Amino acid sequence: MHPDPSQLHTIEDWRQAQRDGAAPRALIEARLARLDRESPAAAWILRLPAAAVAERLDALEQAAAGLTVAERLARWPLFGLPFAVKDNLDVAGWPTTAACTALREPALATARAVQALLDAGAVLLGKTNLDQFATGLVGTRSPWGAPASVLAADRISGGSSSGSAVLVGAGLLPFALGTDTAGSGRVPAGFNQIVGLKPTPGRVSNAGMLPACRTLDCVSIFALTVEDAAELLACIEGPDPGDAYSDFRPGLPSWPGPLRLGVPRLPDLDGELGYDTAWAAACARAEALGATLVPLDFEPLHATARLLYDGPWVAERQAAVGALLDAAPEVFDPTVAAVIGRARGQTAADAFKGLYALRGRRARLAGLWTEVDALMVPTAPTHPRFDAVAADPIGVNSRLGTYTNYVNLLGWCALALPAARTPVGLPFGVTFLAAGGADAALARWGQAWQAATALPPGRLAEPPASPPPPRWPASEPMLTLAVVGAHLRGLPLHGQLREREAVFVGEARTAPAYRLVALPGTVPPKPGLLRVGPGGASIALELWALPQRHVGSFLALIPPPLGLGSLSLDDGRIVHGFLCEAEAAQGAEDISAHGGWRAYLAATVAATPR
Amino acid sequence: MHPDPSQLHTIEDWRQAQRDGAAPRALIEARLARLDRESPAAAWILRLPAAAVAERLDALEQAAAGLTVAERLARWPLFGLPFAVKDNLDVAGWPTTAACTALREPALATARAVQALLDAGAVLLGKTNLDQFATGLVGTRSPWGAPASVLAADRISGGSSSGSAVLVGAGLLPFALGTDTAGSGRVPAGFNQIVGLKPTPGRVSNAGMLPACRTLDCVSIFALTVEDAAELLACIEGPDPGDAYSDFRPGLPSWPGPLRLGVPRLPDLDGELGYDTAWAAACARAEALGATLVPLDFEPLHATARLLYDGPWVAERQAAVGALLDAAPEVFDPTVAAVIGRARGQTAADAFKGLYALRGRRARLAGLWTEVDALMVPTAPTHPRFDAVAADPIGVNSRLGTYTNYVNLLGWCALALPAARTPVGLPFGVTFLAAGGADAALARWGQAWQAATALPPGRLAEPPASPPPPRWPASEPMLTLAVVGAHLRGLPLHGQLREREAVFVGEARTAPAYRLVALPGTVPPKPGLLRVGPGGASIALELWALPQRHVGSFLALIPPPLGLGSLSLDDGRIVHGFLCEAEAAQGAEDISAHGGWRAYLAATVAATPR
Repeated sequence: MHPDPSQLHTIEDWRQAQRDGAAPRALIEARLARLDRESPAAAWILRLPAAAVAERLDALEQAAAGLTVAERLARWPLFGLPFAVKDNLDVAGWPTTAACTALREPALATARAVQALLDAGAVLLGKTNLDQFATGLVGTRSPWGAPASVLAADRISGGSSSGSAVLVGAGLLPFALGTDTAGSGRVPAGFNQIVGLKPTPGRVSNAGMLPACRTLDCVSIFALTVEDAAELLACIEGPDPGDAYSDFRPGLPSWPGPLRLGVPRLPDLDGELGYDTAWAAACARAEALGATLVPLDFEPLHATARLLYDGPWVAERQAAVGALLDAAPEVFDPTVAAVIGRARGQTAADAFKGLYALRGRRARLAGLWTEVDALMVPTAPTHPRFDAVAADPIGVNSRLGTYTNYVNLLGWCALALPAARTPVGLPFGVTFLAAGGADAALARWGQAWQAATALPPGRLAEPPASPPPPRWPASEPMLTLAVVGAHLRGLPLHGQLREREAVFVGEARTAPAYRLVALPGTVPPKPGLLRVGPGGASIALELWALPQRHVGSFLALIPPPLGLGSLSLDDGRIVHGFLCEAEAAQGAEDISAHGGWRAYLAATVAATPR
Repeated sequence: MHPDPSQLHTIEDWRQAQRDGAAPRALIEARLARLDRESPAAAWILRLPAAAVAERLDALEQAAAGLTVAERLARWPLFGLPFAVKDNLDVAGWPTTAACTALREPALATARAVQALLDAGAVLLGKTNLDQFATGLVGTRSPWGAPASVLAADRISGGSSSGSAVLVGAGLLPFALGTDTAGSGRVPAGFNQIVGLKPTPGRVSNAGMLPACRTLDCVSIFALTVEDAAELLACIEGPDPGDAYSDFRPGLPSWPGPLRLGVPRLPDLDGELGYDTAWAAACARAEALGATLVPLDFEPLHATARLLYDGPWVAERQAAVGALLDAAPEVFDPTVAAVIGRARGQTAADAFKGLYALRGRRARLAGLWTEVDALMVPTAPTHPRFDAVAADPIGVNSRLGTYTNYVNLLGWCALALPAARTPVGLPFGVTFLAAGGADAALARWGQAWQAATALPPGRLAEPPASPPPPRWPASEPMLTLAVVGAHLRGLPLHGQLREREAVFVGEARTAPAYRLVALPGTVPPKPGLLRVGPGGASIALELWALPQRHVGSFLALIPPPLGLGSLSLDDGRIVHGFLCEAEAAQGAEDISAHGGWRAYLAATVAATPR
């Protein structure tokens, strides 16, 4: 079966089409033709010539010669999938303009994140428009024009990653790369109702990015589904010794308990656009998904954000392109020139004072993640028309960063997601923010959020089917432990697991090869589990995934005769878990017949006379 | 017995005098009189008035009323011990001049590190001279005069912590605090033949320090012995939410294997002073102590150091005192003014470019600590006369920082130690450098070094007796594990311990309550240890301390029927360690009679026919 090439949206759609017999070359050619006809205005800075794309397809076909579709997708999971990258990311042989016509030199090497997608088999179709030098959240500051939101022709696409966002929002590309320094990977996701994943700073290499603010820049991902964004992050993330700001430290795979979700106590929301009711619905949805909303005073975050443009970070932009600005101011967008020009007169001492102030803010905010697991914010407080931006280019831009500007300064990760269409038909998005390293946990939460939202992304007619991604972003190593006694939920020692960020995996039973005894004289009362082989009992237990870094302090608390060994489960799995020394079990009451400690306790309590 | 108060040198000397019946007040009064007579010229900026010291003693005596000497020393380990602090550390009620006569306002609060010493019962006697604003390594840049080395009247004391170093070097104070931004806690230790401990940046709070370079500053410790310096670090270290640069992350208690000690391949050493032969002797001593010397190209470190004064960090000094320099240049030492004045004209973009360069250097140097555990360097390459400094104040100062300037930029810790008296009678010191967090490991190595060096510190006639310190600086939590089989030294799985930075604790035996079996079919061959109670055997084992953070990945490798539980040793201790499930031991060969796995293996090999 040859599917309708125009109906391929997600990564899995493209893979399934190949499994269904479609040739990657035919799919790409059909998509190229569609891009010729349907690309949103001002989306591209450079379309790769047909010959270059054909050459790439030749190379892929040659590499995969003799392989089945399954084999080639196993080796190159993005085989034959089209994508684009923001034109501040280097692609060898093509200029990196950053939306400045003066930059014409072809790049010598390909940015590492782009290369990772190419290495996975993806087919680059071109480079996309942006606010010049990634300076802006509007998408209007480019000689290549100003894309409109794919859902509102009179309103901006958002920026700076404007072109990448509208191509994905239009359903023309399954994914595209952007970059994000102060919100450039999130605001355009919000304004085009797509997924914008901004990883923890340093998680994805910035090698080959034309810097905006080197201490803050992140490569970002636009996609239609969280599953796709998560798979793409897994593809491009990792340490890079060649990038001094590389800092790959994955955290937990998911949050241990019900999500504690901080929200602004007094969110800035454009009521005329219906953002207020859409926000209320988003809050209700989060609660329906099991989150506890924690209203917070956001002033410390807004104060952090003010450091960004009032403080010295604009000098990082000057460090990147100041020489060109001095030599050829006429090649700069006037607003961009004005913004970068603010760095003039800032001294090195000013820079350090700004860094001290940020360090102080970070220290004062360090306790936030003990109170909540994540934050939910409006992706942007409003969605301006083009004329509003023209009337006040800097003021309107500033307001758009209300919920984005502080994130990279604080080293956090972010996931911008569609939340609603407002009564007036505009997209409304929310962004979930979390501590550095929490990208995988954020993606898992976001998957549930998007499924519950059930909104067609971008200009799609339906929410795409979204199977779980074949790969999740990395998380820290965990050890699954079987607990059988006082560590079970609700029992006295369970807190030792909670304190160590253990994640509940599920209930299970041992193979029928064990004996459970009540250990006499233990405080709190504890059972002992022993393997006895055939003829033994199947004992109920709970499986908990504990971060490996916490296992040592957990083991330190375990007294004799207990220890951590391996248990066989009734489904054949072998997991680590609690065992008891046989000598200590001699003479202890055999309670195997109860089938588990909890059942034994219930029976004992029931049997105790009142 | 009342000891001779002039013979109290180390912390333990002072404590022992109290145990021997001396009254702290009498000891302090005797020391005050001696300080009046013998204080090196230009050592003090402020001596606390006798009334203030008496008031402090009143308060201490009152707090300790009714306690025995042992009780009061248990509660206040530095009870009645005199000390001084560099005059860039705040003491409430007294000015912090930083050697600038214009700074006369009394401080409102006491620096946190100073307060920690006071809280331990120490008695502050005054504030010491320094290179103005801690700008310099010479000790000559102060209106309060230029102290000389306590061992060479025509040579500088070194700086910037000059006064603290000469008071300790003269044997007048058991310890004093300095600060160290680029070597100020190490060079004067070298030039006065005492111990200079510069902790990892952020390990000790900088709250209440007048900043030199806030991103680099450290409180430092001068003492006569490593033991004292280690105890003092344990007293003043710890996280401080009030200091945004606080970063308390202790590492290993000691290095796992024989020390791999990097040394400069071509050290800069003043041959006329005999530094070259002294250095060779230091290298030989390190080898005699078991270290393996690894000659390294130090150019990457020197290049890092050049960032400090050629780069933007001088702007941090401007950020701290630039307003005063602009308003009243006449109150500045001319050399200090010239150094800080270099920040003029440095832009915020320059600052960021410097930070990028440092980040790049840090990334490239990250692999160093996989090749070596520590570095040994000359504390300074030469020891200038006063006239040499006067002739070229900036050039001579620069050379003194050859082996100190890069250390705080890289986030490392350092321990400057006496190494030799040269043939011409000058002190020669070496500094051991290690990765951030390795302060405790560095102190343990330094203790062995100082014991082997057996050199009288400062002007002392004899090396003081040096019992182990009652407290070591913090190290990360470890779990002691008993291994009984394939993880023993030299056996196939031992590498699993080595990879995890396990530190050998010792050999031991179980209580006579165990059975050892040879588990059939295990690869590599493994025994199983089981508790059987009275009548069992005592089994040989090795104890290894494993960082708790590594226990999880270690447990993950342990297959059934083995696990980690608790073992009773024959000395009554209970430790965690390997145990075996009883069911799996059924039918296995009982090898308890061999007394251990190693003995069994030896017997088996011996019994195997050739």
